[in-house]
Amino acid sequence: MWKPDRQSKKPLYEQIADHLEQRISYGEFPPGSLLPSERKLAEQLGVNRSTVILAFAELRSLGIIESRSGSGTRVSQYKWGATPKHTPNWKRYAEGGSFLPNVPFLRRIREALNQNPTLVDFASGELSADLAPMDEIASLMRGHHYTSYLGYDNPQGYTPLRQALEKYLVKYRDIQTTESSILITSGSQQSLFLITQCLLSPGDAVAIEDPSYCYSLPMFQSAGLRLFRLPVDRDGVQPEEIRNLYKKHRIKMIFTNPNFQNPTGTVLNDERRNKLLEIAAELGLPIVEDDPYSLTDYAGVPRPPLKSMDTTGSIIYIGSFSKIAASGLRIGWMVAPNSIVERLADARQQMDFGLSVIPQQVAGQFLKSEHFEPHLDRLRMQLLYKRDLLIEALQKELPDLIQFNIPQGGHHLWCKLVPAVNDAKLLEESIKNGVVFVPGSVYGSDSGFVRFTFARAKAEDIGPGIAGFAKALRELIH
Amino acid sequence: MWKPDRQSKKPLYEQIADHLEQRISYGEFPPGSLLPSERKLAEQLGVNRSTVILAFAELRSLGIIESRSGSGTRVSQYKWGATPKHTPNWKRYAEGGSFLPNVPFLRRIREALNQNPTLVDFASGELSADLAPMDEIASLMRGHHYTSYLGYDNPQGYTPLRQALEKYLVKYRDIQTTESSILITSGSQQSLFLITQCLLSPGDAVAIEDPSYCYSLPMFQSAGLRLFRLPVDRDGVQPEEIRNLYKKHRIKMIFTNPNFQNPTGTVLNDERRNKLLEIAAELGLPIVEDDPYSLTDYAGVPRPPLKSMDTTGSIIYIGSFSKIAASGLRIGWMVAPNSIVERLADARQQMDFGLSVIPQQVAGQFLKSEHFEPHLDRLRMQLLYKRDLLIEALQKELPDLIQFNIPQGGHHLWCKLVPAVNDAKLLEESIKNGVVFVPGSVYGSDSGFVRFTFARAKAEDIGPGIAGFAKALRELIH
Ligand SMILES: Cc1ncc(COP(=O)(O)O)c(C=O)c1O
Ligand SMILES: Cc1ncc(COP(=O)(O)O)c(C=O)c1O
Repeated sequence: MWKPDRQSKKPLYEQIADHLEQRISYGEFPPGSLLPSERKLAEQLGVNRSTVILAFAELRSLGIIESRSGSGTRVSQYKWGATPKHTPNWKRYAEGGSFLPNVPFLRRIREALNQNPTLVDFASGELSADLAPMDEIASLMRGHHYTSYLGYDNPQGYTPLRQALEKYLVKYRDIQTTESSILITSGSQQSLFLITQCLLSPGDAVAIEDPSYCYSLPMFQSAGLRLFRLPVDRDGVQPEEIRNLYKKHRIKMIFTNPNFQNPTGTVLNDERRNKLLEIAAELGLPIVEDDPYSLTDYAGVPRPPLKSMDTTGSIIYIGSFSKIAASGLRIGWMVAPNSIVERLADARQQMDFGLSVIPQQVAGQFLKSEHFEPHLDRLRMQLLYKRDLLIEALQKELPDLIQFNIPQGGHHLWCKLVPAVNDAKLLEESIKNGVVFVPGSVYGSDSGFVRFTFARAKAEDIGPGIAGFAKALRELIH
Repeated sequence: MWKPDRQSKKPLYEQIADHLEQRISYGEFPPGSLLPSERKLAEQLGVNRSTVILAFAELRSLGIIESRSGSGTRVSQYKWGATPKHTPNWKRYAEGGSFLPNVPFLRRIREALNQNPTLVDFASGELSADLAPMDEIASLMRGHHYTSYLGYDNPQGYTPLRQALEKYLVKYRDIQTTESSILITSGSQQSLFLITQCLLSPGDAVAIEDPSYCYSLPMFQSAGLRLFRLPVDRDGVQPEEIRNLYKKHRIKMIFTNPNFQNPTGTVLNDERRNKLLEIAAELGLPIVEDDPYSLTDYAGVPRPPLKSMDTTGSIIYIGSFSKIAASGLRIGWMVAPNSIVERLADARQQMDFGLSVIPQQVAGQFLKSEHFEPHLDRLRMQLLYKRDLLIEALQKELPDLIQFNIPQGGHHLWCKLVPAVNDAKLLEESIKNGVVFVPGSVYGSDSGFVRFTFARAKAEDIGPGIAGFAKALRELIH
């Protein structure tokens, strides 16, 4: 991002005016479009608001922009000649389509992190750089001769990676499959997108956990699905609820994250696993099992997935490297019946022509390498360590104001706030105090919860981050 | 793909039966699902059909599969216990969703290439391995220390790549922009997907060229768009048509590929460029300019894009590495007004959480490296050489039966067949003769055309490939 040069002889406001004029002439801000507010621009450029006011005044005097009170500052139309030329109404286009924007809280968090990368990040659901196998991946890349052909890939994904995953799935997840039943995706996110877009039709009813990661995804609403909730307690969802939902709403699919659920950290208990499979088979209902966290099990004995017990072929299984290696690889997978894999591979061709071969090669090599096991061991220990740092900090700072169950795997701690506070205010106040988290309402229908991710922050930032959060919370309840 | 072991003592049919039983028990073919036909399986496994018939008989005797005449062979239901358990009706799910399958001809071509990789490939619109900068990329990867953080990427794409593209766009495409107006995508394909899904609404009318690449994409129909055609002649589209389409159908967007158009190879002439921009500005209509081929200009003086003349900010510009470097990188870009870039970046987060950082790093480095220019020079020469080989072969084999204009850039030759032949029959006959191409009806409404891609085949295969095609064509017209 461009910043004005404080060493330059040219006044800051002139530099800013020139820069904006340039961007306008590039078409980045077409005639009629709204410029960022003075306040926002000042923040972005790291200058005083008065400097931006001067820059805008300069551009106004040149006829390049126009400000009307109450409607912000826009790029002038008339500058672009007297002929009746119109820029497309881009704003209307940006509002078109059936694809809903991301949840406002998540957009706000991203914006806050962009503006201030020093915030302690309890929001992003991913590993910190020191927990990702960066050195291992770098050395694999340096050592390898990437001579294979870099053409459009197999629609189901790079064959050697699918072969490596076939072995991985037997060894680590107790899933018997073959490479032809595996589809490589751009993470679990794309698996969920393909399923909701291509296997379900607008108006279809589906069951999701409440709270759950899926709840945070406008993708379900964009696909026109009707969402029904399966409440999650300490032992996961109550499967009997499914029968009711089926009777009442003819649900077409069940989405579940049985191991170290995001956000609650719960594990579905054995009795419920059996019941869930039994009911699904009885109703002929497919289950989508989203399983990104199992291998983080701190005790090192991950529970097998539902898929390993699936004798009726009812389950689409989804896995990912994001939570156990690096989210920036963008490598996930799906195990499903042949007809489903073929259909989704064909549709994905239409969307993006498949994944780049390069990260697929890297991922396949990493899986097969001697680095994989030691990496997992280290990962589990470090996550456990960070979980404990977070819990300690919460017990120190907010012993009476916060409650939680202690998760045995995963990246997240799901907390109930004892006092009633407004989500938006708490988030804003926390940002002021140097910390972000995700308000619980993003994941579920109950209010008064907070999700802290302890995987992403540096260990040494966890204490100070929670101190900042505690300050914000106490601020609001006084 | 598994193949029976001809060295083994176990008879082939038993090996096949065991293999199928295993795959069925993995849930790959759930109870009730259809197995591949005997003929197809025999082809896939490289055995006689009678061997597969024996294997099926074996499985039938075990009660694992059932064959009913006319409806193929299915996995038995009853084997899975006497309780009333149902596998989901996966077939119905596979037919769900609003996302249309790929064009049957394209699926057929992919299948033929999978089954027989020795076919001469005049169908895949991409570079052959020897034209892609494989060595350059391999050496960049070996030399580089990938220490940067592998977390979820910036929603607009990896910042250093956007910065490299900013420079590239000025230098090679005469486009002034800033990194904040650039969105990195998984190739032009994803750019088109994002635009059709997120900026347009079902029922909207749009104009596409006829013939054109877009015509081959069910993506437009999947988004519920109404397509209206702008006929392409030797000099590109006739812009005046747009006014009519606007009056009659209120078209909302124009899609064009003005330089070395796929499939015709035409270049939009100067007069029409000016007219097109004038009309778009008059009507306030956005243009999507798809520009993957310009840098292949055999003379080495690529024509600037429409975007470089765009004073009203009417154009969304789309570029890609697929046609000038390697399609397996899956790196494309879009230059658009800020509001559009932000909207599409946000939507893309929902679909796949962005691209892998690794190929973005590689692409950015390649762009900035000293390898880039020499690669382009070599690419142009080689494409010209292959174009000439193709033309020579056609003139030798089919002097009287085929007509074409000679393209000055790009990967494709668009040919009119003088005799009337059935597209499907010609394709099947060609496959038998060891060659694939794309029937013209995939790209346009006029019949009797064929698209030959000369970039993908090896130089030494072009002559024999055309001989095979000529044999197929002559077969059909006699
Ligand atoms: C349960 C669950 N599913 C899916 C995802 C998406 O992850 P990715 O697409 O990076 O694999 C996440 C990420 O937070 C998750 O927690
Ligand atoms: C005109 C045009 N646009 C877009 C594409 C898609 O290419 P990619 O997604 O690989 O950039 C192609 C590929 O054939 C094309 O010819």
